[in-house]
Amino acid sequence: MTVQILLATADTPPLSELAPFVLVAVLLSLVTIYLASQLLGELASRLGFPSVLGELAGGVLIGGSLLGLLVFPESSAGVPSHLMEFLQWTTGLGQEAIGTIFSTESEVIDVLAEIGVVILLFEIGLESDLQELIRVGPQAASVAVIGVAVPFAAGTAGLVYFFGVPLVPAIFAGAALTATSIGITARVLAELQKLSSPEGQIIIGAAVLDDILGIIILAVVASLARTGEVQLLEVGKIILSAVVFLLGAIVVGRLLSPYLVGIMKRMKTRGSPLIPALVVAFVLGYVGQVIGLEAILGAFAAGLILAETEKQGELEEKIRPIADLFVPIFFVSVGAKTNLSVFDPSVPANREGMIIAVFLIGVAIIGKIFAGLGVFGRPEVDRYAVGVGMIPRGEVGLVFAGVGAASGVLSDALNTSIILMVIVTTFVAPLWLRSALNRAPRAAAVVDTSPDPSLADTTGVASDQE
Amino acid sequence: MTVQILLATADTPPLSELAPFVLVAVLLSLVTIYLASQLLGELASRLGFPSVLGELAGGVLIGGSLLGLLVFPESSAGVPSHLMEFLQWTTGLGQEAIGTIFSTESEVIDVLAEIGVVILLFEIGLESDLQELIRVGPQAASVAVIGVAVPFAAGTAGLVYFFGVPLVPAIFAGAALTATSIGITARVLAELQKLSSPEGQIIIGAAVLDDILGIIILAVVASLARTGEVQLLEVGKIILSAVVFLLGAIVVGRLLSPYLVGIMKRMKTRGSPLIPALVVAFVLGYVGQVIGLEAILGAFAAGLILAETEKQGELEEKIRPIADLFVPIFFVSVGAKTNLSVFDPSVPANREGMIIAVFLIGVAIIGKIFAGLGVFGRPEVDRYAVGVGMIPRGEVGLVFAGVGAASGVLSDALNTSIILMVIVTTFVAPLWLRSALNRAPRAAAVVDTSPDPSLADTTGVASDQE
Repeated sequence: MTVQILLATADTPPLSELAPFVLVAVLLSLVTIYLASQLLGELASRLGFPSVLGELAGGVLIGGSLLGLLVFPESSAGVPSHLMEFLQWTTGLGQEAIGTIFSTESEVIDVLAEIGVVILLFEIGLESDLQELIRVGPQAASVAVIGVAVPFAAGTAGLVYFFGVPLVPAIFAGAALTATSIGITARVLAELQKLSSPEGQIIIGAAVLDDILGIIILAVVASLARTGEVQLLEVGKIILSAVVFLLGAIVVGRLLSPYLVGIMKRMKTRGSPLIPALVVAFVLGYVGQVIGLEAILGAFAAGLILAETEKQGELEEKIRPIADLFVPIFFVSVGAKTNLSVFDPSVPANREGMIIAVFLIGVAIIGKIFAGLGVFGRPEVDRYAVGVGMIPRGEVGLVFAGVGAASGVLSDALNTSIILMVIVTTFVAPLWLRSALNRAPRAAAVVDTSPDPSLADTTGVASDQE
Repeated sequence: MTVQILLATADTPPLSELAPFVLVAVLLSLVTIYLASQLLGELASRLGFPSVLGELAGGVLIGGSLLGLLVFPESSAGVPSHLMEFLQWTTGLGQEAIGTIFSTESEVIDVLAEIGVVILLFEIGLESDLQELIRVGPQAASVAVIGVAVPFAAGTAGLVYFFGVPLVPAIFAGAALTATSIGITARVLAELQKLSSPEGQIIIGAAVLDDILGIIILAVVASLARTGEVQLLEVGKIILSAVVFLLGAIVVGRLLSPYLVGIMKRMKTRGSPLIPALVVAFVLGYVGQVIGLEAILGAFAAGLILAETEKQGELEEKIRPIADLFVPIFFVSVGAKTNLSVFDPSVPANREGMIIAVFLIGVAIIGKIFAGLGVFGRPEVDRYAVGVGMIPRGEVGLVFAGVGAASGVLSDALNTSIILMVIVTTFVAPLWLRSALNRAPRAAAVVDTSPDPSLADTTGVASDQE
């Protein structure tokens, strides 16, 4: 029921009267997001690029740096997007009402994007193979540790020695080089149907460990920036909760999953098994966040647990339309939040930042390719592809830049260089990973869960023709 | 990447730092909503009630009147729900941060609920049969007009003559008796697989027209309450836009749908045909709202258009998990917003309201059953079931009560009586409609799109055993 007619007289309508317009503002934003993700995703896949690259590019296109259709209040200083101007033009609402709608709509889109990455990680967990992940565990741990230690050490040392950056900001920027964005890598692997290959499982396992290492490093660096010293107790607590949480979720989850499947089977109403599965994912996501980790790690664990049950196939099929709906919101938002103004060479800090960025990008890429060498004792695994899979820093690096900028530790130039590093690694990685995985017939051969390397040559041909 | 550790020092953290907690607050609310909807939906369906009744009851259970888990700032005067207390307990966040998270989380849940009813109406449109809807158009129009005119006239007159209510508030309360809640009726019809029966299509068609008539009446009544006179130009504008919009959407949609299907077929990326279809639904929803109607009418029109294409089956299958995800949020929210304090007899206005409510409920029910008699020239249609299908007032009636209370036209007692009328018709209708539709073998017989009444007896047995 519309209340539009009532608004004509009210000066400052309360939010509840604006509710129908908040809804349509969200619908309008979603339409814009989907048009961008579908058009540029389609274009990317026709040009031979991974479609996730198109979604990111679509986000950049409609974001604050270019068309200004999807902008967020924190980056636009509260100035409404062109979409909101369109809403104002079509509804005749006042400036103040539009401002309220804009901020609410942005928060909703933000949460939908976050739900998108939660659903993505749940789907990735559901398509993963826990046995294989445990089997490649030592290799993944080795890749993760090298891939965190090398860029961190090389980045920090290089900034201090070559660029004369003081130690604390150098450590901060070095830390920003560490954590891989699981989302982008996993999405590319899924698109190429390489998620359950040994390479894919090592990358996913290492990226999850990376994420936890990244959280620990952020804790260390943040307390260093704040108090000048490292609070070992805090760091120990995070490490302990990470271990207890991931192991606990999987052990307890495996014990309880038969009962959960039993409940799913007995349920007669619509929504089973999807809704009970999502309840598990959301509960573990909640726990993951409140113990100081991340919601996506909980959702991934939930996916892993349910992947072992007989409901796996049905869940994978039912989660697919939901992922189609939510995941593009995440990638388009990441693209839309990309600040292209760092490429403007007329700003002195940008020129300095670009020079530092060349160094950071080099360290970021070489460090992770080096990490691929951490795969030991598995000669059939393509170690180069594993390294390339770890390159994208995505949103994780941006959090470091944001925290650094907020705490005043980072100079403008260093901040810009981190953002540039994130943009380049994020946009380069999908393309590179695809070519790396398709490079050698041997690497391309190990499709899905085919643990027998002797099958490599026969399946290799088929998968190349995909 | 968590920023929890940083919050320890910040006094009033900005919303961007709280973002991970807003996400988990939303996840926690969704978990609560799904547990309530699944448990009570399951219980309802095992007891032989429609599961939508369980979802509504689940909402009442977790809402502000009982458990206080899912409450909304406007009704709780900003006091956070017990879920937020749980979040505060598990995260150690400050009071102010929890307040910010609570209000953002509530807005997000509100929008998700609204998207839920948009998706529901899209799904209903997709499962409807435009040809059949056009065929039963005259009957639906007759049902709608009688079902609006009789309760309105009888309600207004009764309040003035029996209860001595002044004319303007009486007209307001009479108007609140008019519009049927499409959502509840459609959901019950879908559960019983009676959506495409002639009864189902007449009810849906009449409910859509009812909604439009309700909007017109609200416009008339609101301008009456505001200025004391009816602005005919405004009313004419709404009528014109409703006609142009619904006819235009269907005519233009039918012309363009072959091209849309062509695009869907040529798309190679994930998400087709679902995302293009939702783009159409959201665009029409947007247009529906901004021209002064409602977003759900646009979504329904989009569903109707796409129901005629060859993608109908695939879309119906893919929209199902999405509806399973979003629709319960709507019904549980409706339940959670139900204010049970109107049943407290110690408040004088409640006692007076209950007496008026008995009258309003009687008029609401008898008026709509009377409307069922408006079905002419179709002897095979169960006119009693059609009337029962129009009974639920749901959220529509609550909008009238809210608008009335905000404008100061309604006394406390009259406001309470409207809320009571809405609660009773909403909760009684699903049960009643189910028994009405299953009552006679003839009525139960016309399942799905079986235009031939001679098939009635053979299919009747099968559908009774469902």
